[in-house]
Amino acid sequence: MVSGRNETLTGRIRLGMVGGGNDAFIGGVHRIAARLDDHYELVAGALSSTPERARASGEALGLARIYDDFKSMAIREARRKDGIEAVSIVTPNHMHYLAAREFLKRGIHVICDKPLTSTLADARKLVKAAEESDALFILTHNYTGYPMVRQAREMVAAGQIGKIRVVQVEYPQDWLTVEETFKQAEWRTDPARSGAGGSTGDIGTHAYNLACFITGLAVESLAADLQAFVPGRQVDDNAHVMLRFEGGARGMLWSSQVAPGNENALKIRVFGETGGLEWAQEDPNYLWHTPFGEPKRLITRNGAGAGDAAARMSRIPPGHPEGYLEGFANIYSEAAQAIMAHRTGAALPDEVTFPSVSDGLKGVQFVSACVASSKRNSAWVSLA
Amino acid sequence: MVSGRNETLTGRIRLGMVGGGNDAFIGGVHRIAARLDDHYELVAGALSSTPERARASGEALGLARIYDDFKSMAIREARRKDGIEAVSIVTPNHMHYLAAREFLKRGIHVICDKPLTSTLADARKLVKAAEESDALFILTHNYTGYPMVRQAREMVAAGQIGKIRVVQVEYPQDWLTVEETFKQAEWRTDPARSGAGGSTGDIGTHAYNLACFITGLAVESLAADLQAFVPGRQVDDNAHVMLRFEGGARGMLWSSQVAPGNENALKIRVFGETGGLEWAQEDPNYLWHTPFGEPKRLITRNGAGAGDAAARMSRIPPGHPEGYLEGFANIYSEAAQAIMAHRTGAALPDEVTFPSVSDGLKGVQFVSACVASSKRNSAWVSLA
Amino acid sequence: MVSGRNETLTGRIRLGMVGGGNDAFIGGVHRIAARLDDHYELVAGALSSTPERARASGEALGLARIYDDFKSMAIREARRKDGIEAVSIVTPNHMHYLAAREFLKRGIHVICDKPLTSTLADARKLVKAAEESDALFILTHNYTGYPMVRQAREMVAAGQIGKIRVVQVEYPQDWLTVEETFKQAEWRTDPARSGAGGSTGDIGTHAYNLACFITGLAVESLAADLQAFVPGRQVDDNAHVMLRFEGGARGMLWSSQVAPGNENALKIRVFGETGGLEWAQEDPNYLWHTPFGEPKRLITRNGAGAGDAAARMSRIPPGHPEGYLEGFANIYSEAAQAIMAHRTGAALPDEVTFPSVSDGLKGVQFVSACVASSKRNSAWVSLA
Amino acid sequence: MVSGRNETLTGRIRLGMVGGGNDAFIGGVHRIAARLDDHYELVAGALSSTPERARASGEALGLARIYDDFKSMAIREARRKDGIEAVSIVTPNHMHYLAAREFLKRGIHVICDKPLTSTLADARKLVKAAEESDALFILTHNYTGYPMVRQAREMVAAGQIGKIRVVQVEYPQDWLTVEETFKQAEWRTDPARSGAGGSTGDIGTHAYNLACFITGLAVESLAADLQAFVPGRQVDDNAHVMLRFEGGARGMLWSSQVAPGNENALKIRVFGETGGLEWAQEDPNYLWHTPFGEPKRLITRNGAGAGDAAARMSRIPPGHPEGYLEGFANIYSEAAQAIMAHRTGAALPDEVTFPSVSDGLKGVQFVSACVASSKRNSAWVSLA
Repeated sequence: MVSGRNETLTGRIRLGMVGGGNDAFIGGVHRIAARLDDHYELVAGALSSTPERARASGEALGLARIYDDFKSMAIREARRKDGIEAVSIVTPNHMHYLAAREFLKRGIHVICDKPLTSTLADARKLVKAAEESDALFILTHNYTGYPMVRQAREMVAAGQIGKIRVVQVEYPQDWLTVEETFKQAEWRTDPARSGAGGSTGDIGTHAYNLACFITGLAVESLAADLQAFVPGRQVDDNAHVMLRFEGGARGMLWSSQVAPGNENALKIRVFGETGGLEWAQEDPNYLWHTPFGEPKRLITRNGAGAGDAAARMSRIPPGHPEGYLEGFANIYSEAAQAIMAHRTGAALPDEVTFPSVSDGLKGVQFVSACVASSKRNSAWVSLA
Repeated sequence: MVSGRNETLTGRIRLGMVGGGNDAFIGGVHRIAARLDDHYELVAGALSSTPERARASGEALGLARIYDDFKSMAIREARRKDGIEAVSIVTPNHMHYLAAREFLKRGIHVICDKPLTSTLADARKLVKAAEESDALFILTHNYTGYPMVRQAREMVAAGQIGKIRVVQVEYPQDWLTVEETFKQAEWRTDPARSGAGGSTGDIGTHAYNLACFITGLAVESLAADLQAFVPGRQVDDNAHVMLRFEGGARGMLWSSQVAPGNENALKIRVFGETGGLEWAQEDPNYLWHTPFGEPKRLITRNGAGAGDAAARMSRIPPGHPEGYLEGFANIYSEAAQAIMAHRTGAALPDEVTFPSVSDGLKGVQFVSACVASSKRNSAWVSLA
Repeated sequence: MVSGRNETLTGRIRLGMVGGGNDAFIGGVHRIAARLDDHYELVAGALSSTPERARASGEALGLARIYDDFKSMAIREARRKDGIEAVSIVTPNHMHYLAAREFLKRGIHVICDKPLTSTLADARKLVKAAEESDALFILTHNYTGYPMVRQAREMVAAGQIGKIRVVQVEYPQDWLTVEETFKQAEWRTDPARSGAGGSTGDIGTHAYNLACFITGLAVESLAADLQAFVPGRQVDDNAHVMLRFEGGARGMLWSSQVAPGNENALKIRVFGETGGLEWAQEDPNYLWHTPFGEPKRLITRNGAGAGDAAARMSRIPPGHPEGYLEGFANIYSEAAQAIMAHRTGAALPDEVTFPSVSDGLKGVQFVSACVASSKRNSAWVSLA
Repeated sequence: MVSGRNETLTGRIRLGMVGGGNDAFIGGVHRIAARLDDHYELVAGALSSTPERARASGEALGLARIYDDFKSMAIREARRKDGIEAVSIVTPNHMHYLAAREFLKRGIHVICDKPLTSTLADARKLVKAAEESDALFILTHNYTGYPMVRQAREMVAAGQIGKIRVVQVEYPQDWLTVEETFKQAEWRTDPARSGAGGSTGDIGTHAYNLACFITGLAVESLAADLQAFVPGRQVDDNAHVMLRFEGGARGMLWSSQVAPGNENALKIRVFGETGGLEWAQEDPNYLWHTPFGEPKRLITRNGAGAGDAAARMSRIPPGHPEGYLEGFANIYSEAAQAIMAHRTGAALPDEVTFPSVSDGLKGVQFVSACVASSKRNSAWVSLA
């Protein structure tokens, strides 16, 4: 197997889940991600804020232990000898902090969906809760789990495109082109549950996180022009953002949920003094490398020219596409390595990396800065 | 969740595995495929023909019951109340028949890697064994599990491109461009273990199966020109094949393992009287539909224009790519539905379909006909 | 011939040229463009500001009348009965105004390369000169000559994507990634000859013009962040610009000359309330149309779904690519129709259109606003 | 100007044309091709076999001398001091020989559309006529004029992909998917005017010529399966052909006029022992180079990695697409160089090359062999 992913780590991690009941999209994704490399066993859950749904969903999944709410789950699991070691939190954004702190304070590792929280205040409290806990906190900025994203990051770090000058990142979708009529859309466009950002929070944070992850650079300030094109929408559905990175690089970020023809068209281009890189989420097994003055090169996952950072995030040979679920599973498997090292106190290998609570804070700061800048007619707002 | 795949079927199927030890590529793929939708639990295995490796591999995977050989596994599992209900056979081709019959005759369902067998004689015996057994036989021609392949098949069946005239299918690779030096290549180019066909058996059968699956047409005869370009190679590494389908459609099939720049570039184009379809394995979430006299349309998985046949083979929304493993898992999940229906005697829904032992026989006949035609200077050979 | 372009207009237009001597890139392009549809005959020229080069270049091209400078050319050609009817001005930007006015005031039509001028003051004077002249003024914003750009404009005007919300336009190149060492680069990065804008003037104006041409919308204000990444460069080589259009649409414009891997990657995406359009200059025979809720459609030049506006700008059947020179020739052929109508006083058909002196002024205003905004830390600057 | 094409050859060639009247597609293409680089002046024509149309068409183009038929044109032009030096023959196929010999025997160079003739007998006579004449014969297999085709040929010749093993070439169209109703289709599907081959003659010959041109290899034998899918059609509209090249390379050729969604989708892939090349006519400015064991490389026209053979066939910088007309013009400009060298007796530079009468004979032999093989149930037919 031309692969770095290893399904033979011993001792599967006992996992719980908060949120993710029957018709929630992201819960199912988390469960597949946890299962793919066989490092977790889902044993407990409080899958809905509605007790009946929580129970029905838990039974449908055959969970060993079903709870009506996350707090009693945290308390009781923490007391069990065979209690969960980690919990996945996949509720709407505004519940992330409240749920996470219950587990963190009881030493249960938290794997939390993004964005970190719906408010900056919550984000700061969650950072504190994570810092005070011995438990790990993993944020599922899942796109950083794609092998070719790792490849890009490795190439930048190795200086293969030189000092970075320009970053163009975008995440257009079209599902909110017309007024939302279904559940997914509903909470995501309600500022009370989703946060002050609409497209900025839901997908802009992914784009922002990806830009920072690949380049290794922090953004110093941004200038944003946010819109809500659909009448009555309370949060932005389109955002134009200019970025200034530390060290002088400049960038543009575009997030949109009203761009017909775009599904999840996250795409990043990074240009340095000696070359460029380009990656697109919808075609994730490829990375364009354009060394200045040489022909463009198309690097494929596990193909010629791909390095170790990508190989260890992959399972199958080149030409057999891996996708979104595998990338998501990579976050879970990185987390598994960290959790297992934590069990024994072993050192975590350098190459294991996953989005942290401070990455999550940065994401919430990004949303907050976008909203602030846009209110001030696109004035530059510091992110320091 | 915009999805047809359902992880909540109750009562996971107890699964065994023959072959697929430590460094075998395809065994790991089968295990992920079985795990993805959570319908199976891998409990037993004879993972290698070398007992030490069988044991080490089984332990690494944490199997409950580890066997030295498939025969004792079949015997002993059949006797257990909690014995396996199904077995995955992922050995080299020449072992498929011998292993499969042991399980079939004991009523254990068989999920077998392709090609069905290494010889036509074995294939016929295996068909007979399957027919005489009450157990199910599923062949993992995994590419038929891709959602957009199902979409194509559904569109052809619905007459959306009219009566079929031309089928162009190809599966080029490049990994055998130079003399093979690693294990995967070794058995695949040894006629005793792989069969008389090289590229024809390993990948040509996939292309052939895909063409028949999508068009719903049988091939009546073929004319082939096979080559072994690499000195000393005993089986074909490149095959040019002309096809004549029932009803008058004509086709070309190209398989190659010496085409530099190709990884697993399986691609099919089907042209009917009123339109065409095009699908490529390396970019599997897209299907081109070209109605004659109208603009080309790009249909995406779960996107606009995609129908039920694709939706039920999918897990996540459009724009989040699914890949090879999900397509493979779809075969396992189709099998799971059949096995569960078999448990209770319930009728299997019409839409559940998977490659059968007779599809496997057709594949072996294809290889055999290619070799025969090529020996007779590309004379047309009947497949009836 | 599946074509709208007609090579049989009678009476070829006598053409002169200013600039465009031996090793100038754009002069050769203008000459091919003039020749392609056979509506012009190049008879006179002042091809260089250096008289020896002007003469040598003129002789090499076999010009009937060669001049040392544009002023004497204007004077003497205006006096001849068989003097030129039109002149192509292809000098560096800072000479456009001076040359153009000499011809305009003598009633000789001017076909002028873009940007209109190197300063806003010159631009305004040139507008006045054009207004006071009976002669026509055509600016070669050549990208508006591409058939599929016309197709896009026609579709927007027909309401096929609804009211426009978002415009994303970009023009990245890489040829100035390192310090310039050749003539083309030299004057284009010298503010005295090129104007205050670098990438904004050379290519940003093209992107800006294209966005306005396709959408039919004016930009009300912009906020820009310009950089000169290459040490010592006096004008911008990268520009990030946010746009606010009349009617509420928002846009982003990116121009760069330091983006390795990009040649002339002009690309525009326009999103309306009911659909989107996407066109890329390097693959100009295609237009993506993405009606919301339907599969993406790929419209090809002269193919199914393409309309009249594109057909009349084209010469050959679909699938035979036309390129940059044909698009450029379309501007010349539109101009030829106007000049011939002007000869006889005939009305110009509605569909004939070409970039005008006021489009040129808008381009110079764009550059000026970018520079002003960037100096004011990206404050919004009005373009009204 | 980053270019090899030179518009300053002195002394434009006096050109005549046979065929190509008003509504003929290919005549207009030839005229643009002749004009583009300014090496020809079209002065005489017999543009139609119908005298009235010949005259009307000639007048519309402003020809100096208009003839009713090609024979009187040949006779009278040969007598004039300022008579044509070359003639373009753009009639239906069955007239090529008759027209060409009249000019050849009078020492007038012939530029002839492909295929050479409609019958093998005519082709042989034309070869003889060309051999007996001092005049040059140029066949417009125009696809060999594309810069990146020259690039491919140069790379093969330089050994950059090693000894060739496999050639996959195809030319699908869809315009004859339904019964033909317009003039272009009419003569092209009439064996008396077009020849015994339908798709094989019209486009298969292009594919065949391209394969031989790029690889530098001759085809020794072929096995073909031809079809006429549209009821009543007298010539093939789909052809599947297997090829055996000298030296052991094998190939497949597919031509079709009934493949919905294909416009002029000529595409070639060549695989050698150490690498591969891929080129597609509809996107002609790119060439994929896939050295075995390295990332794929995308070479662009005039971009990094492109060599001299491509550069001299090009006019404008990378990223500004050239298309079909420029490729066609390259044949005319190669011819111009040869004709000018012929004027003075100067040696022709090695790099100047164009399709010859013997290439034309090979094309007709190809069609003839396809028809013969198909009649003999796809038996191998020698082309030696």
